[in-house]
Parts: sequence; C-alpha cells; structure tokens
Amino acid sequence: MSESSAPQRLASVQNHLQIDACSNEEPRRKTPIESMAEERVKASFNVRDLTYYLDGGEKSTKIREKFMMELERDPTFRMYDMYDVTKDEIRERTMEKFRTIVHYVSAEPVSVFTMRMQTISLIDPGFWTRFGVHYGLFFGALRGSATSAQFSHWVSKGALALNGMVGCFAMTELGHGSNLRDTRTYTLMPGVNIGDIGKKMGRDGIDNGWIQFTNVRIPRTNMLMKHTKISRAGEVKEPPMAQLTYGALIQGRVAMVVDSGNIAKKAVTIAGRYAAVRRQFSSNPHDVQETKLIDYAIHQYRLMPILAMAYAFHFTGVETQKLYDTLMDKLESTQPDDAGLQDTLETLKETHATSAGLKAFCTWSTLNAIEACRQTLGGHGYSAYTGLATTYNDFAVHCTWEGDNTILTLQLGRYLVSCYREALNGKAQPEGVDYLNHLNTLLTQGCAVKTNEGILDFDIIQQAWGVVTANVVKKAGDDFNECLKGGMNPEVAYEECSQSRLAAAKIHSFGYVFRRFVQAVKSAPDGLRPVLTKVCFLYGLYSIEQNAGFFLQYRYFTPSQMDYVRAQVNVLCREVRQEYIPLIDAFNYTDYMINSPLGVYDGNVYEKYFDHVKRQNPVGQPHPYLPLIQSLLRREIEDDEPLEDDDEDDE
Amino acid sequence: MSESSAPQRLASVQNHLQIDACSNEEPRRKTPIESMAEERVKASFNVRDLTYYLDGGEKSTKIREKFMMELERDPTFRMYDMYDVTKDEIRERTMEKFRTIVHYVSAEPVSVFTMRMQTISLIDPGFWTRFGVHYGLFFGALRGSATSAQFSHWVSKGALALNGMVGCFAMTELGHGSNLRDTRTYTLMPGVNIGDIGKKMGRDGIDNGWIQFTNVRIPRTNMLMKHTKISRAGEVKEPPMAQLTYGALIQGRVAMVVDSGNIAKKAVTIAGRYAAVRRQFSSNPHDVQETKLIDYAIHQYRLMPILAMAYAFHFTGVETQKLYDTLMDKLESTQPDDAGLQDTLETLKETHATSAGLKAFCTWSTLNAIEACRQTLGGHGYSAYTGLATTYNDFAVHCTWEGDNTILTLQLGRYLVSCYREALNGKAQPEGVDYLNHLNTLLTQGCAVKTNEGILDFDIIQQAWGVVTANVVKKAGDDFNECLKGGMNPEVAYEECSQSRLAAAKIHSFGYVFRRFVQAVKSAPDGLRPVLTKVCFLYGLYSIEQNAGFFLQYRYFTPSQMDYVRAQVNVLCREVRQEYIPLIDAFNYTDYMINSPLGVYDGNVYEKYFDHVKRQNPVGQPHPYLPLIQSLLRREIEDDEPLEDDDEDDE
Repeated sequence: MSESSAPQRLASVQNHLQIDACSNEEPRRKTPIESMAEERVKASFNVRDLTYYLDGGEKSTKIREKFMMELERDPTFRMYDMYDVTKDEIRERTMEKFRTIVHYVSAEPVSVFTMRMQTISLIDPGFWTRFGVHYGLFFGALRGSATSAQFSHWVSKGALALNGMVGCFAMTELGHGSNLRDTRTYTLMPGVNIGDIGKKMGRDGIDNGWIQFTNVRIPRTNMLMKHTKISRAGEVKEPPMAQLTYGALIQGRVAMVVDSGNIAKKAVTIAGRYAAVRRQFSSNPHDVQETKLIDYAIHQYRLMPILAMAYAFHFTGVETQKLYDTLMDKLESTQPDDAGLQDTLETLKETHATSAGLKAFCTWSTLNAIEACRQTLGGHGYSAYTGLATTYNDFAVHCTWEGDNTILTLQLGRYLVSCYREALNGKAQPEGVDYLNHLNTLLTQGCAVKTNEGILDFDIIQQAWGVVTANVVKKAGDDFNECLKGGMNPEVAYEECSQSRLAAAKIHSFGYVFRRFVQAVKSAPDGLRPVLTKVCFLYGLYSIEQNAGFFLQYRYFTPSQMDYVRAQVNVLCREVRQEYIPLIDAFNYTDYMINSPLGVYDGNVYEKYFDHVKRQNPVGQPHPYLPLIQSLLRREIEDDEPLEDDDEDDE
Repeated sequence: MSESSAPQRLASVQNHLQIDACSNEEPRRKTPIESMAEERVKASFNVRDLTYYLDGGEKSTKIREKFMMELERDPTFRMYDMYDVTKDEIRERTMEKFRTIVHYVSAEPVSVFTMRMQTISLIDPGFWTRFGVHYGLFFGALRGSATSAQFSHWVSKGALALNGMVGCFAMTELGHGSNLRDTRTYTLMPGVNIGDIGKKMGRDGIDNGWIQFTNVRIPRTNMLMKHTKISRAGEVKEPPMAQLTYGALIQGRVAMVVDSGNIAKKAVTIAGRYAAVRRQFSSNPHDVQETKLIDYAIHQYRLMPILAMAYAFHFTGVETQKLYDTLMDKLESTQPDDAGLQDTLETLKETHATSAGLKAFCTWSTLNAIEACRQTLGGHGYSAYTGLATTYNDFAVHCTWEGDNTILTLQLGRYLVSCYREALNGKAQPEGVDYLNHLNTLLTQGCAVKTNEGILDFDIIQQAWGVVTANVVKKAGDDFNECLKGGMNPEVAYEECSQSRLAAAKIHSFGYVFRRFVQAVKSAPDGLRPVLTKVCFLYGLYSIEQNAGFFLQYRYFTPSQMDYVRAQVNVLCREVRQEYIPLIDAFNYTDYMINSPLGVYDGNVYEKYFDHVKRQNPVGQPHPYLPLIQSLLRREIEDDEPLEDDDEDDE
C-alpha cells in the first residue's frame, strides 16, 4: 500500500466501501480498514490538488514520490529495524549510505538534491545530519571561507567527491559555547587525541567526538582566509563587512523551520490515522461498535490544533525559505560600497531576527506536538515501533543546536525592541513588524465587531494579533527604556528586560505564522480555499485561546468574546475533524516514510503492529538469560523469613 | 564526594573558600569547584534541618542515606554505565537485582521497604516497575482478590518468596484498553504462545510481552474469587460493594504523584548545579570572568519556577499519601452495612478524583520540567550521560499508564461538576473543593488589596485561586446543564463539555497544590519558614502568570495587578536564586543517585564529564567499521562528474 498511486488508493477505498455496503443488513463491527476507508469519502476537496499545492506544483510532488520510492527499495536505507539497532550498527549504516548519496551530490542540480535531502531528513535525521557535517559544515566552510587557491587544494584532495577524506567540524570547547574559533583536521597526527563522546538522546548516526591538541601547531596556510586574514607576523585583518558572511548561519535555521513543518506532519499522520481506527468505549451501552477515538470531542481538541499547526508551519517554512533566497540574492549582488548596501543590511537584519525567532518557535512547538501525538496513542505510544519516541529524541536537538532556543528568542526580542524604538522616532518598519507602523491607532484598539460571529474573519484575527503584539513589544521596549533611565548600560538593560523580550518574541511569532498561513490560504486554488480557511481559523483561534491572558490584558477581547473564541475552537475542531484524514493524506507520506505500523495508510494497524513485533522479536529463540532466571527461581532459601499465610504486612 | 556526610561537605566548602580568599590579591578565574562552593555560604537556613523536614524527620533521612549507600556499593546496582547498555543487558541486570532485593521483602517492615523501593525508583525505574509487576500486580492481585485457600496455595508455591515462579500480569487486549478481563499464567502450556513486544521509549528493564491463547482452558479454580465468584455452572456473583476494592487503583496514582516530586527534584538538581558553575559571555567585556548561567535573569526564570514546583510537588506527595492512608484505614474498618459507610464512600470518591487529577497534573508538569531542565544544559543536554534524556524517556510512561492523563483529568472534571451541582443544592463539600461552599460570595469577587504589594499574601493568593477555580468549575457545570437541557443524556453531555471539564480540573489542581504548599510552609520550623515562604510565593505567582487568562477573564486581577504579578515573579526568581543551591542540596541526593557528571555535588562537572566519556568510550580501540570507511574513501570514481573549481552549484 505504501507505494500505491492515488488512483490505486481510491480503488482500494471503493473496495472497502462495497464490503461495508454488502454487510449492511445486520449490524456488525467495522474492521480497522473499513474504519479508515469511510474517512476518505468525506473530503470536500481533491486531495491530490492539495498535495500539489503544498509541494509547490505537480512536478515537485512527482520528484518527491520518485525519491520516496528509491529510498524504500534501497536496502541500505531499510528503516523497519531502526528502532532495534545499536549505536554502532547505526553508525555503520550511516557510512554505507554515504556511498549511495554521494553520487547525487555532483549528478543532480542543487535544488533537486535539496529536495532529496529533505526527504531523507524525515526518515533518517541522523544520517542527514552526518552528511550535512561533511557537505554543509566542512565543505560549506571551505566554499564560504577558503580563498580560491585553498578551495582548489581541498577539492583536489577529494573534499567534494568525498574521496580520500571525510570531513569533520570542531567548534565547541568543553565548558564553552559558540564564542570561540574553529579548527579542523582529518587524520591523527602526533599530539592530537580524539575520542567518541558516546551515546546521545537521539541521532546516534552522528559520530560526535572530542579532540584534544597537545602542543600541536597547525600551519597558517590551513586557516581559511577568504574573509579574515592573518599574516606570517600574526597581524589580523578583518573583512570590511563581517555581517555579509552571516548567510550560512541563517540557512541552518531556515532548514529547521522547514523540518518543523515536515516532522509535525509526520507525527500527526501517525496519531491521526490511529485515531480513525482505534475504538474505545461508547456513550451508548447498546452500541455494537465502540466509538472511534477521533469522535471524542477531547481527542479532536488534542489533535486538530496540531494538524492546523502542521499546515501553518508548512506554509511558514515555504515563505521563510523564500525570504532567505531573496536575502542571498541580495548578498551575492551587493558590494560593501554599493548604493543598495543599506537596504541589503536591513533585509539581513530582518531575516536574521525572523529566522532566529521562528527556528525557536517552530522547533519548540513541534517538539511539544510530537510528544502530544505520542501520548494520544496511549500505551502503544511507549513502544519504540510506533516511531514517535525516536522522532522525539531525534528532533529534540533542534531546540539547542545552532543557537539555543531561549537565546534565539531573546535575539528576536532585542530586534523587536530596536524596531519599536525606531518606530517611535518615525522610521517606517518592514512588513514583518508592520504593526509598529500603526502604534498610535493600534495600541488601545478593541475588537469592534457587532456580533461574536464577526470574529471569524481573517482581518479581525490579524488585527487582534497586531494589537496584542504591538502592546507586548511596547512593554518590552518600555521596560528597556526604564532600565536605561535607571542608569544601566544597554547590555545590562537588555538582560534585565529579558522576560518581557521573551514574551514579545513569542507573541510576535504566533502572529507572524498566522499571517503566513492567511497569505497561503488566499493564494490557494478555489477548490482548496474553503477547507484551508477552516484549518487557518482553527490555528488562529486556538493560538489566541492559548494566549488568552494577553488578549484580555490589553482589552482587545472582552471576557465574553473570549468565551466565544473558546467555544469556536471546539466547533472548528469538529468541522476540521470531518475531513481530517484527507487533510493528512495530502501530506503524501508513504508508509515507508512514516515507518510506524500505527500510521499505515490503509488503517490495518493491529495486524501490521503485531507482525512488526514478531518480526523484530522472533519467538522460539533461546532465552538470553535463562540460566540466570533458573538460578534465581531454584535457589536454596536459607536466610529468608518463614512464609506465613497472614504475613500481609510484608508485601 | 557522593558519600560525604554533611559535616564533611561543610569542611569541603570551607576549604574552597580559603583557597578563594588566598587568591584574592589579583583577579583570576574561579574554578567550577570554587564557583559551586561560594553558593553554599549563601544559605539563610540550616540545610540539614530542611532535609529532615522534607523527609519527615531525622530518622527517615538516615534510613534513606543508608539505602543510598547500600545501593552505591552494590555492584549489581552499578549505574554509571546504564546509558550505554543494550536492552538485553538491562533485562539481565534486572533479574540479577531481584535476587538482592527479594531478601528485604520479608526481612523489612513494609514502611521501610517502601522507602527502599522509592529510593530505587529514582535510580532505576525500570527495575522498580518490573519488581512491582511481581509484587504489586501479581502478588498484590493474589493478596487482594484471592480467597484464603487460593492465597495459601500460591504462597506455598513460592509467590511471596519469588521461588519457583516469577509473576507476570496480563491485562490489555491488542486494540483495547483497560475495559476488558485479566488472566495470568506462569509457564508455557500447549496452545499458549508468548513473545516480547520489544523496544520501548524507556524502562527497557521491563520485559513487556504478548500472550496468545489458542483453544486453552484455564481451570475455574485459577480465577481469584475473594470478591467476584463464579460457580461451576457459570453463575457470576458480584461483591456487595465493588467500590470498596478500588483502593489498589488509587495506590499507583499516589505513587506517581510522589515520584513526580522526586524526579523533579533530581532534574532540577542536575540543571541547577550545572548553572552555578557553567559560565558564558559577560555583559561587561572587561570582566576577567564570564557570567554564571544562573546569574542571567532569563536562566533564573527558566529554573527557579521548576525548583519551586519540585518543592510544591514534594509536599503534595506527602499529603496525598496521607489522604490515601486515611482512606485505606477507613476502607479496612468499614463493612457494607456500617453506619459510617456513607462517610467512607465520600472519602473514597474524593480521594479517587483527587489522586486521578493530581497524577495527571503532576506527571505532565514533571515531564515538561525534565525536558526544560535538559534544554538548560545546552548541547550537553543531548548527551545520554547527562541523564536527563533517559530520565525523560523513563518518566514519559507515567502520562499514559494506570489511566491516560487526559482521561484522568476529565474524571476529576466530572467530579468537580458533580460537586458543583451538589453545592448548588446546598450540600456542604469537602476540604479539597471548599471554594464551592462559598459560591455566592466567591464568584464575582475581585482582589481587594489597597496596594499591589498586598498581593504577596498567602490568603490573597489562595483566594485568587478559589475565585478563579469556582468560576471555571461553574463554567463546566453550566455547560453540562445546557447540554442536559438540550436533551442530551448525561454521558453524552459530559463528553460535550469535556474541554471546559479539562480546564476546570487543571485550574483546580494548581490551586490544590498551592494550598498543600502553603500548609507545609505554615507547619515548617521557624528557621525554615522564611525561605520556604519565598519559594511558595514563587510557585503561586508563577502559576497565576501561566494562567493569566483566567484571572483576567473572571476579573480577579486587573491588568495592572497582573503586570505586578509578572514583575514580582522576576523579583522572586532573583531572591530564590540567592540560596537555590542550598535549597537543592536539601533534597540530599548523592552523586550516585543523580548519576550525571553535570550534577555532581562539588561542581567539578567538566573533569567528571570528560572522565565519564573516556571511561565509556575508551580510546585506542580498533575502529568498529574501519574497512567500510576505507573502501568508501578509496573507491574508484567512474561515474561521478569531473570535479571543477567553479562547480559551486553542486553542494
């Protein structure tokens, strides 16, 4: 089923429905496959069209499908047993995969190869990262920071072809973070000691290690000198515009925003499909059939907002990637003495702050969503084979690497405070913080709709976020000003108002993501707009409910309007639930990609789960520690107390 | 250091301070050990006294210390390598531990043995659970549900002594939850198939399996018939008061409330100690020394509320255990025809709902706290050796087993709705929901303090929670009544208002935990009360900040009072930070128990971490997959594109 095309899938749905229709005469329980099939006829839209829209066109969808099939058929990329293999085995497979993928580095255009790697990141994030260490960090550092002569030298040694060397990247000193210099080496020289740092929470495919230099001298020519140069006499020459080299930092953050959407889609695919076939209890004791999990209001409330978030993050990822591409175009065409330099620097500042805040916001939210999805599986969620535990462990690192999320959020907060102060001085602010251009009218604005139903309007909800964000940013800015007035230097003042900066950045990100979602809904084909509108409203109102304090604090909504928002979240959960399986199907992940028996396309979760358990834990094997158990259970009891029937205290 | 007594520790602190004093002449960087030592002189209270108060007296502390030392010296319980061992090795060790611990089952009074097992649960939750399967589930089922003759039979076969048999417990059918019957077997008979369900998220020491019966007949005499009886002819006789057997269900939940406090203490010990020695950046570029993480306002805001929560949950655990003990006393002394039956049933209902809600509330909050603590360690938090990743994976199961947290929260919500309806009819409600006895005055009450500073008052904060909880419970009750009026049956009506029930239960639990904390502060010895008061205020105000929407919605606080609450949270974070290391030390976990080089008592985190990495990943070993790497890096390149210097698109 995992390889089936859309028409095959439809035929399969029809099949199940016929079975269902035939058996209509006497009530009987529906099978999981039938329970799933009946969800698919509820779609008000063409699933395939939504897939094309998400992927950015039919052509991209077909390329992704080609990649998924290639991976599934490649024994090197077998994933079904990944939850049982040891760290050493995972490492060995990672090296095997290099051989397959390295071929495509030079054989495919970069845009296509990027899609290939995005597909791989979903199924094997450990390999994806290890590959990224060589090509992103190691080779990327050569490309970005080596002089032309240095670059040629390393390419001729095999750095691009991954021949003769595999790159590593050493950056952090023990007890220190990222404010320190980078070095690299590729073979063990006298005085150089290396070791493995061992087991990690996840992504054990990455062979993180430690390196120690004892009286080692690295030749000056090994220092990459495209930007900063150092002379034989030790004189350092900094580049004229250091900021212009920041692009690479932003790239990793954008990739994590994109990954957040993709992983959220994967998690909600598993939890969502399971909820369509798992039945438990019934409000009516006479029902022959128990109720589907997804038909409980509370289960809808647990999953539908996550589905909405996955859509929101998907569209945010697409837009952030565009923002980044625009920036890179500008950076590549700007020289330090250009007329457009100021504009480029503004774009850089905005993209840097936005991507920092979104990286933190999206990875935090997604990590929580993975765990929430895992918990909706009940006891099954604790099985490694469900996939979500590993997904959690693999994903968690996104919250701390390439900038700790708290620090990145504070960076966005600092940018917002600085924009606010500029806006007060009359300077026009960019689109991302447009609300700062209307402080006079916005700060004290309340929701002016005549009826509660009027709230269900993109413009009103965007205004709500605008008003509240303007206020929390103002709060952070005012706190900062107070500190300055009290005599603190700016750095100390920023520290002092970090809690309000954090709140400002968080609220800003909610509103920002919502705007990206609205934009995507407005640009969607007619046939998709109704369903996406509901999903978008759900994202917007659920986010307001989660942050109700600020909307009431700044009096945008009255308590009674807030009650309406809460009630409407429930209504929207129920409406989105009607076609949530088609909304999930549109993500178009094959069973291989999902790698979870509970998330299979056809809904046959129990048979697939039990098959998986038996395949990975074959019966009839010799017991691994039988002698130990036998010696425990057949031991002579000498020093134990005599057993007495009434000895109940001794449990 | 991990075994050092309190006096030894003090001497050690003095030592470091002298070193520090001697070197005072010229500024130099403090070592991690010195950075930690300077924290310990800040205590305004006697740490040992606080330990005694937490443990319930000096005697309990000494017993716990005896257990910790015994475990540390027992090679069977070696834990330093647990983050690297495979599932099969963990299982084997679990069996080895049985032999040690089984001795104490009959040699120790139950209260002492319970403390021993609580200590073990902190260091090896997998073994703790597996042991609990035999003694809690299997033997407990015999003790609670077997007739006297059946009990004697199984004890004589070795069920208590764990001789000749090791118990298991089969309960859940695939695709079903806990509404189904239990069976048990202990050896493989014809028609019985068993298997392992394989790798889990955590607690791999538990050998969860599956069992399949194919035309197997289990003798009627194997059914435990103390309560429900079945005759040879198949007639079922139910017990007169089935509820009176519910005690066992509650016990597990109480244990998880207690465990939540203990694990939160462990997590914040690791994150808190690391934050006292890890330094990063400085607001002043001329500082010779970087700033401690804990001296950043935002880091205080990340950790101090968790420290406060750990204290809150500790005291809640103690009180919940007492509630449970009271209930069990009543249950054991109540016969179905007693005059006190009604009172016992009320206590049962209250304890059942309270423990269900607290189990969910405390395990959810603690799981989040573990992850939050892990993230404060930055990149180190992703190392398995830090311990928090494993702690997370082990702890996560608490959120779904013995009652899924969402379902349990809804059960508490249902209880609250039912109490609310009783209160409307004039029936007095028990202490846990006392706010329902004052609905007339409470519902519309606002905070009447004259100055903002007046908010810092236990009575005011308790009133705040009372007012808000009364309102959210009323909201759930009113939603329920609306549904009934609309013609729904009660079960459907409860389903329909599940979102407001969930909110009611959550807010109720916050207020409930706060009251338990206040009670413990008021009962504390004079010398401890000032510091505990600050911690308790922090818990109360931080919780209000997190739920600001409800306090503004029901107009208990004005927006300006809410601003004061937010500001005060920061102030309290800073105050508690002053003596947070002594507050952590009072938890009195040895280094062995913490099992994390980043959380060691003396603060020497980097040396211990690096030693640990090298011990677990020895250098100089043959590379496990060197031939694979060699064949990759020395391969013939045939079909790759020729390498070109300007081929930059191909990254």
